[in-house]
Amino acid sequence: MAQKSYNINNAHRKQTQQLDVYPRFLFGPGPSNAHPRILQAMGMRQVGHLDPQFLALMDEIQELLRYAWQTDNEFTIPVSGTGSAAMEASLANLLESGDKVLIGVNGYFGNRMTDMAERYGAEVHQLHRPWGTVFSVDEIRQGLEKHRPAILGLVHAETSTGACQPFDEIGDLCRKYDCLLLVDTVTSLGGIPLLLDEWKIDAAYSGSQKCLNCPPGIAPLTFGERAIAKLKKRKSKVANWYLDMTMLMDYWGDNRTYHHTAPINMNYGLREALRIVAEEGLEERWERHQTIGESFWEGLEGIGLECFVEKRYRLSSLTTVKIPEDVDGRAVHKHLLEEYNIEIAGGLGELSGKVWRVGLMGYNSRSSSVALLLGALKSAVALYRR
Amino acid sequence: MAQKSYNINNAHRKQTQQLDVYPRFLFGPGPSNAHPRILQAMGMRQVGHLDPQFLALMDEIQELLRYAWQTDNEFTIPVSGTGSAAMEASLANLLESGDKVLIGVNGYFGNRMTDMAERYGAEVHQLHRPWGTVFSVDEIRQGLEKHRPAILGLVHAETSTGACQPFDEIGDLCRKYDCLLLVDTVTSLGGIPLLLDEWKIDAAYSGSQKCLNCPPGIAPLTFGERAIAKLKKRKSKVANWYLDMTMLMDYWGDNRTYHHTAPINMNYGLREALRIVAEEGLEERWERHQTIGESFWEGLEGIGLECFVEKRYRLSSLTTVKIPEDVDGRAVHKHLLEEYNIEIAGGLGELSGKVWRVGLMGYNSRSSSVALLLGALKSAVALYRR
Repeated sequence: MAQKSYNINNAHRKQTQQLDVYPRFLFGPGPSNAHPRILQAMGMRQVGHLDPQFLALMDEIQELLRYAWQTDNEFTIPVSGTGSAAMEASLANLLESGDKVLIGVNGYFGNRMTDMAERYGAEVHQLHRPWGTVFSVDEIRQGLEKHRPAILGLVHAETSTGACQPFDEIGDLCRKYDCLLLVDTVTSLGGIPLLLDEWKIDAAYSGSQKCLNCPPGIAPLTFGERAIAKLKKRKSKVANWYLDMTMLMDYWGDNRTYHHTAPINMNYGLREALRIVAEEGLEERWERHQTIGESFWEGLEGIGLECFVEKRYRLSSLTTVKIPEDVDGRAVHKHLLEEYNIEIAGGLGELSGKVWRVGLMGYNSRSSSVALLLGALKSAVALYRR
Repeated sequence: MAQKSYNINNAHRKQTQQLDVYPRFLFGPGPSNAHPRILQAMGMRQVGHLDPQFLALMDEIQELLRYAWQTDNEFTIPVSGTGSAAMEASLANLLESGDKVLIGVNGYFGNRMTDMAERYGAEVHQLHRPWGTVFSVDEIRQGLEKHRPAILGLVHAETSTGACQPFDEIGDLCRKYDCLLLVDTVTSLGGIPLLLDEWKIDAAYSGSQKCLNCPPGIAPLTFGERAIAKLKKRKSKVANWYLDMTMLMDYWGDNRTYHHTAPINMNYGLREALRIVAEEGLEERWERHQTIGESFWEGLEGIGLECFVEKRYRLSSLTTVKIPEDVDGRAVHKHLLEEYNIEIAGGLGELSGKVWRVGLMGYNSRSSSVALLLGALKSAVALYRR
């Protein structure tokens, strides 16, 4: 064959070095540091997405996810995207244009749910609560009574505020009002007590990069029987092809029909993350997060810092710390990164400039993290007091 | 704090072994085998998605992607999902409900584009060609003249048929008819001659797991000026939150505004994949794929097997091989996997049962792959001749 010649543009042929990044302590709201076993698993050689070995691995992931979530839901899978993709998958599949949806907004992620639901044509109503607080059963009841929604969306662990929504009675209320209960468990799965079936949650999603310590890029999703029933009764196609669970059911179910190529190595990582959860045990894991969280809170008090959320609703996996009025919050944050390789984050939305967000998630929830954080915070706060 | 006790369900607390999969030769339509340097990069410790180090890495990925695609397009990014997510991102962003879209269907993926475009409310018209053939400039011209679409969608390298669509004149035609040219380059990027700007392609997407040899889970997308202009003139919000490029532009652009958590380690992998492309050079890479492809085709002839696609339109990265009528195609396929650890695939859609699909992509495009494949195929075909 005659050699063709091409007019190649080399302007973007950038010379780059081998990847090498500083060893950061990821104590922000996520990603948390990956467990070394998870990074190791992700480097395992690939098999195809229809290989019998991969199909067996998919079954294992589903089982281990059911354990982590405490659910018997058959439809329990990882979505091929990050936590926001799983959030969108739950809304895109469970609602149809014109459906009434009630969303609890007591932080940033209630607004994100609202934005998504509106794009799928829902009539969205919001229940409001000050950021950092949680909804009472009575408030939920009044909301359901007033709006009679098809879906109630709540955030279990608000990553923007550090507050943990209790779920006693809410599941029963939703059944009484013939409403699906959809819950964001992004920052709780694998770290905070979470009992999906006992709490009668109909649909939930999560992320991999919080208490599970798997890098972002894969996101758990589960639908219970009532959610599946609504999905199967849809009159319209799901308005999102990539996240269409009616098609993905045929890949994750017995048919194994090709839909899209699964992210093989991210699935390797998630499987390892869930193995680690199953090895440690949920109760042990929840208790560890609580103990470490409490020791961090006590330490903060010792260095004159205050938590933003009332103790009984405080998430052990994500603490919001009030930035003292005479301290330059951004400078502290930057100093921690530059001097200690510690990543923490500022506030989102209306908490911007008011709090730091500090995550102690999964593998990162241990005494050495607390000691390091307290030491670095104490010195940085002293340095940047105005 | 008093220790709470929970009623834990241990039914799904499955005991599993450390991950260990057979070393497969991934000679199907993708995923291809990951280059060892890419797996190594993916195992690098994480940084946060707003870490200065990650922001620098994002810039490098964008530059290297521009080189691989031969484009100066500023908006050139990886989407946080697999190739199908990037396909959907291009349609969800560039079309609005009611837009006319013309899609070339000469294989499986034209139908997928159609399904997606319809979900976003497009009025879809199709141009048809027998599977395994390509469209002539005249056919495209007639289609544009008849339908006057806002977008023309074509597949450069049809993974289902092994045919390569030429692009001479099509870009000019699209400009003449004031139509955006959207091209699927999933199986061509990094393996097959592809000159985005020279061909006047307005938008393109690809996958990571074909000729780039990065595991699936991240997918390149690029929009040229004409595409960006249409995006900026939208009257409605993009009907897909996760893939809303008007928001993602603020993360990949100068503002660095948080949208969703980027899949950090998949970005590490893609960066390494693109570094490898830049090191080898595009022309060298294209020539290698062509030489290896031709030696495979000659070898097939030598063992009495025939290619499905006419030679001048044949993809060197993905060969469709006719299954001889007296051979049990499925049995051959299975035998290759079980006896040789070789994955090839059967046909999709109307080519099901009629062809095998054999990929020699990126790192896998080398003489040892050809020798191994030919040896294994020869022996398996002899074994399963009826």
